[in-house]
Amino acid sequence: MTTTQHIDAYWRAANYLSVGQIYLLDNPLLTEPLRPEHVKPRLLGHWGTTPGLNFCFAHLNRVIAERGQDMIYIAGPGHGGPAAVAHAWLEGTYSERYPEVSQDAAGMRRLFRQFSFPGGIPSHVAPETPGSVHEGGELGYSLAHAFGAAFDNPRLVVACVVGDGEAETGPLAASWHSNKLLDPYRDGVVLPILHLNGYKIANPTVLARIPEEELLKLMEGYGYRPHVVGPDHEQMAKTLDVVFDQIAAYKDGRADRLPMIVLRTPKGWTGPREVDGVPVEGTWRAHQVPLSGVRDNPEHLAMLEAWMRSYRPEELFDTDGRPVPAVLRTVPEGPLRMSASPHANGGELLCPLALPDFRDYAVEVEEPARQSTEPTRRLGAFLRDVIAANPHSFRLMGPDETASNRLQAVFETTTRAWHAGLEPTDEHLAAGGRVMEVLSEHLCQGWLEGYLLTGRHGLFNCYEAFIHIIDAMFNQHAKWLESSKKIPWRRPVASLNYLLSSHVWRQDHNGFSHQDPGFLDVVMNKKAEVVRVYLPPDANTLLSVGDHCLRSRDYVNVIVAGKQPVLDLFTMDEAIAHCTRGLGILPWASTDQGAEPDVVLACAGDVPTLETLAAAAILREHLPSLRVRVVNVVDLMRLQPRSEHPHGMPDAEFDALFTTDKPVIFNFHGYPWLIHRLTYRRTGHANLHVRGYKEEGTTTTPFDMAMLNDIDRYHLVMDVIDRVPGLGTTAAHLRQRMSDARLRARAHTREHGEDAPEISGWTWP
Amino acid sequence: MTTTQHIDAYWRAANYLSVGQIYLLDNPLLTEPLRPEHVKPRLLGHWGTTPGLNFCFAHLNRVIAERGQDMIYIAGPGHGGPAAVAHAWLEGTYSERYPEVSQDAAGMRRLFRQFSFPGGIPSHVAPETPGSVHEGGELGYSLAHAFGAAFDNPRLVVACVVGDGEAETGPLAASWHSNKLLDPYRDGVVLPILHLNGYKIANPTVLARIPEEELLKLMEGYGYRPHVVGPDHEQMAKTLDVVFDQIAAYKDGRADRLPMIVLRTPKGWTGPREVDGVPVEGTWRAHQVPLSGVRDNPEHLAMLEAWMRSYRPEELFDTDGRPVPAVLRTVPEGPLRMSASPHANGGELLCPLALPDFRDYAVEVEEPARQSTEPTRRLGAFLRDVIAANPHSFRLMGPDETASNRLQAVFETTTRAWHAGLEPTDEHLAAGGRVMEVLSEHLCQGWLEGYLLTGRHGLFNCYEAFIHIIDAMFNQHAKWLESSKKIPWRRPVASLNYLLSSHVWRQDHNGFSHQDPGFLDVVMNKKAEVVRVYLPPDANTLLSVGDHCLRSRDYVNVIVAGKQPVLDLFTMDEAIAHCTRGLGILPWASTDQGAEPDVVLACAGDVPTLETLAAAAILREHLPSLRVRVVNVVDLMRLQPRSEHPHGMPDAEFDALFTTDKPVIFNFHGYPWLIHRLTYRRTGHANLHVRGYKEEGTTTTPFDMAMLNDIDRYHLVMDVIDRVPGLGTTAAHLRQRMSDARLRARAHTREHGEDAPEISGWTWP
Repeated sequence: MTTTQHIDAYWRAANYLSVGQIYLLDNPLLTEPLRPEHVKPRLLGHWGTTPGLNFCFAHLNRVIAERGQDMIYIAGPGHGGPAAVAHAWLEGTYSERYPEVSQDAAGMRRLFRQFSFPGGIPSHVAPETPGSVHEGGELGYSLAHAFGAAFDNPRLVVACVVGDGEAETGPLAASWHSNKLLDPYRDGVVLPILHLNGYKIANPTVLARIPEEELLKLMEGYGYRPHVVGPDHEQMAKTLDVVFDQIAAYKDGRADRLPMIVLRTPKGWTGPREVDGVPVEGTWRAHQVPLSGVRDNPEHLAMLEAWMRSYRPEELFDTDGRPVPAVLRTVPEGPLRMSASPHANGGELLCPLALPDFRDYAVEVEEPARQSTEPTRRLGAFLRDVIAANPHSFRLMGPDETASNRLQAVFETTTRAWHAGLEPTDEHLAAGGRVMEVLSEHLCQGWLEGYLLTGRHGLFNCYEAFIHIIDAMFNQHAKWLESSKKIPWRRPVASLNYLLSSHVWRQDHNGFSHQDPGFLDVVMNKKAEVVRVYLPPDANTLLSVGDHCLRSRDYVNVIVAGKQPVLDLFTMDEAIAHCTRGLGILPWASTDQGAEPDVVLACAGDVPTLETLAAAAILREHLPSLRVRVVNVVDLMRLQPRSEHPHGMPDAEFDALFTTDKPVIFNFHGYPWLIHRLTYRRTGHANLHVRGYKEEGTTTTPFDMAMLNDIDRYHLVMDVIDRVPGLGTTAAHLRQRMSDARLRARAHTREHGEDAPEISGWTWP
Repeated sequence: MTTTQHIDAYWRAANYLSVGQIYLLDNPLLTEPLRPEHVKPRLLGHWGTTPGLNFCFAHLNRVIAERGQDMIYIAGPGHGGPAAVAHAWLEGTYSERYPEVSQDAAGMRRLFRQFSFPGGIPSHVAPETPGSVHEGGELGYSLAHAFGAAFDNPRLVVACVVGDGEAETGPLAASWHSNKLLDPYRDGVVLPILHLNGYKIANPTVLARIPEEELLKLMEGYGYRPHVVGPDHEQMAKTLDVVFDQIAAYKDGRADRLPMIVLRTPKGWTGPREVDGVPVEGTWRAHQVPLSGVRDNPEHLAMLEAWMRSYRPEELFDTDGRPVPAVLRTVPEGPLRMSASPHANGGELLCPLALPDFRDYAVEVEEPARQSTEPTRRLGAFLRDVIAANPHSFRLMGPDETASNRLQAVFETTTRAWHAGLEPTDEHLAAGGRVMEVLSEHLCQGWLEGYLLTGRHGLFNCYEAFIHIIDAMFNQHAKWLESSKKIPWRRPVASLNYLLSSHVWRQDHNGFSHQDPGFLDVVMNKKAEVVRVYLPPDANTLLSVGDHCLRSRDYVNVIVAGKQPVLDLFTMDEAIAHCTRGLGILPWASTDQGAEPDVVLACAGDVPTLETLAAAAILREHLPSLRVRVVNVVDLMRLQPRSEHPHGMPDAEFDALFTTDKPVIFNFHGYPWLIHRLTYRRTGHANLHVRGYKEEGTTTTPFDMAMLNDIDRYHLVMDVIDRVPGLGTTAAHLRQRMSDARLRARAHTREHGEDAPEISGWTWP
């Protein structure tokens, strides 16, 4: 047999196994004529993309085996799950991961039966699938994941099949430009294979229907050298040889463009040509299950049998159901098998970050709330040294906002990654830079996901409002983590860390369109095991939280922290203790002297904390006999009952802090409902009154923003007076003064265009 | 003066007015030397993009005036707000909309002062800005909005300036391909102007730094004829003449490609070259405010004055501050002014839809819950006739899911819009089709927003989980509506209607990655005035809700409805009454006989309603003396207090329905917390126990999905038994039987791969 024949045998075997997974409950080797009871009652899965995925995998295996090339495979059309499972089984990985699915007839039967079957495995290339770092349930992220995997893996090639449906999505369309941030020397290579099978679910695809000349210009315009391949083994093999020579030249600096492949095949290739009188192969009708009536329609049953036998299983598997040597001739060995690559189970490669001591970046705090610091600027110094200490395993992502978010100290040790034109005026721009900036939250997120899932570390800094752009990607990644946690062989990976800055309360240059703190609500819908939310109120708490997040595994950590100067509240030791507890009383701001308070002022977030402190100071001065307790919350998950989240506080602790019957005025960074959602089971919930963002805003001053949403100090004092009974006439007068103060503050900003100095420069008295 | 000189005068005037808005409080005409107190204390805004926006607008005006061309202007870099405001003022529209901002020195002073100033106007091209349908706060949607505006406006040209930062986003990268769905005859034209000023916030842009040859290939690959223009009046004017001739040829069928322009200018063009020894014009430093220390630094103050005087204001405005005729020579008249176009205040053009009577599509229901219908298929028939009756003002958007969501009746009257290659096997594909399908939720959303804001109607059907892809776009549109409602001259537009189908409970082919009902949580964060959520449980209620939404204005309506067969519960008359109330008791399923019940079974959503009914039937049979009330909720907003939402129920009504002290088992379609969030202020809230999706799922059977999340009939019965006191041993036995039934059901699906017929075929006994 020629090499091409070996590849073809492998391909037929993979196709056979794919069809078997979609259809069969039993009789896996077709040792007897196919009967209705051999067929699954519900036929679920996607055939259309599968033969193309199998074709690429088969041919890449030959290249890997011949060149000893380290490679992983990303299937953009991840709904072609049968393909990935078939390869893992053929390569032996499946049986290594799941010994009960042995590489023999019994195992093949189990392999078929479990697919898309209750108690079995998902229909997609899910975390359960060996060799996968990309589920592809929601389309659009394959190429970004591929680049993320390639960064800092100089010897790796990431083969990425992009479906032509997926290619219509925005994130994918933008991902092609990732090559402008790829370093040919320090990074690996991405080989995009645009698989034009012509159709998505029910429609032709755009890229399959534009003139080929236009398509090639598009790919050249994206900066690639395209190669067009048809459904032909010889052509594919020859093209891959050229392509891998070009990749070698690119790595050697002899070429400045990466190759890519346009693969045109029929959709549902090798499946039924026509069913019930209408064409199926090569049309959208092949997208899911080409033969749908197999159990009831003898003609369909016969077609299924003929289809499966067309792969000549008797040549591919021995009588015990094991793949014959000819099928496996081009399969690589050990970790070179794409289904077994440690890169696709990144936890296997993960090394803890070398972390400088975050205490070394502490702000000196002699007295609380007397001086101000920009928290993210402090964190930037810490991140600078994290980058310096981990030059190949940590990246900082952000949509052109690293400096805007005041993390620019990182540029003392690194640059932005850049592999496009340079100008003399450029600053901090070079290939290999650790900072990844492009104006696409989708790319930042996709790159980071790919980078983390292949065993590295990172942090994504983003404007708070625009992190919603990747809500859907966050959901998919959180689901990946939720599933992975249940799979013993999936090793923990570094957490996905978000730093949300330029937040809702300080949108000086922008305004209403930039005000949305609702990402936290999206995050809270995912399982408690994988999500964490932190709102450090000052620089030292931010450092402590940041260090904690960088050490954690398998979470999504969301940190919300302002870039504007905020009052320093905690010494570093206090900050560590406060963050470890997750929340706590600020004794110096409280007047309850350890006794039961009359009212609790709670706060979470930097600006709400500042306003709460200012309110506490007013109350202390004007209502000195009122016992006020100030509680700051850093770790939002602490508010939940322990039954809901592992960080949740026991009720007794919660009640001791917040009381069971006193009014609690909670000043919150985000939409107020979230606090109710977290606390509605607590005894004192009915006494909880939450202030937060209520969709009021425009381009205005910081204090005017606070007033528009009633989170300002004056309104908080009014809230206290309205809720604590029996405060008498002094309080009534104070309330009136607060109301007047609001009017005066508003008039001041409208006249002067800025907040009065006693507000913007306020410190603890 | 030559025409070019007129254009230049206009451009200088616009630039002068832009700088004035960013900097000045007073002395608008520089009639006296500039002093620090003339300058705003906080300098907020974006200069960098502004002169380019002004340049394009000035030149397009000449074309409009010469050709009588109907045109609107979309500024992708919408943060260049000063530009749009300047044009509206120069064209007289600003003073028409805001008479207090007159077209004279006093008005100019007010114009300057109000910009980015407390109590004034936002810094972006916001709803407050005449002539705008696109805020551009969150970047990426300009081109999709432009195409949306062009659809069904055959005489309109939408000039769309795409920033080179914005061009890096995914949605924008995908939007170029919108030309494949544009009908040259029935639709208008989009003229993209890719404005390469080289930088985003702090970085060069990708498209400004790739070789020009590559950039041109990219644009040709997207299907356009690119024209490169530098910062030169003559070149721009000449190019626009060519471009509009090409547009005319395209409209006549003499050309098959639309032109586009690549405009290269310095960033912050005509601003300070160098400040404090570093280059500013032509670099990222010009992005916001090039001179930042004007009030304190005399050198900066002098530079600002010199900069403003460089536009020679004395040539542009008369001593009363009115623009001189030479400045206005190329300004079009009346509604041809882009700032005054009725297309940019779409409510002015809005006509109500001609709606067929939705009752004509009713399912006949003799007895409730005995027969099943696919609700979306029924709605499809209604939509078919909506399309037929409104051939130029209604579009149906969806990412290739119209048929998958079972709306395919629409193809009896229309096609998918398609203006690319055709094959003989194609179905329902032609230019001018009313169905817009491309595998990009971003494009569907962006097109629809553009279509609605220019005065038309539509509906976006989408898989429920993937609607999160446009969370951020929804936020921006909702904010646009929130702001527009406060602006008297903004006329109401048609609501943005979502139909979310293929929902969390029926993901047979896909599984976990396709399960996320959390869009409702995102929607609920926006102001009550603009958001509505409906969960019709059967076909007739879906029809009633659908009709209602298509008639509404200025809302975002979210409808969640399954595509799988569900039991018909209501006759059409009952459905109308039920939807009008928004929620109500199902008397035939209840056993409380109008008296106070022992327990309330509440439900919202089709699958939860089915399970609730099945639970009610079990309770009726086995615990006949238990008084059960079944309440179905269609309009989720009814659950809130009236103080929170205009649809909110008064407490007395709520208490009468749900009781104040009896257990309420609420079976909900989405994440359970949302029901708590909506009801936490209600008296009986502590007795409310909510079931919903809790992130458990995979590819499995429908009933197994219900069981995985404890929303199944058996679990609901157990919930009732656990919560109603004093039910005795019969109930204890029933509880055990329910638990056993769950185990049996699970075993059945694991053995047979499908639900038992008594479950999947269940009807009301």
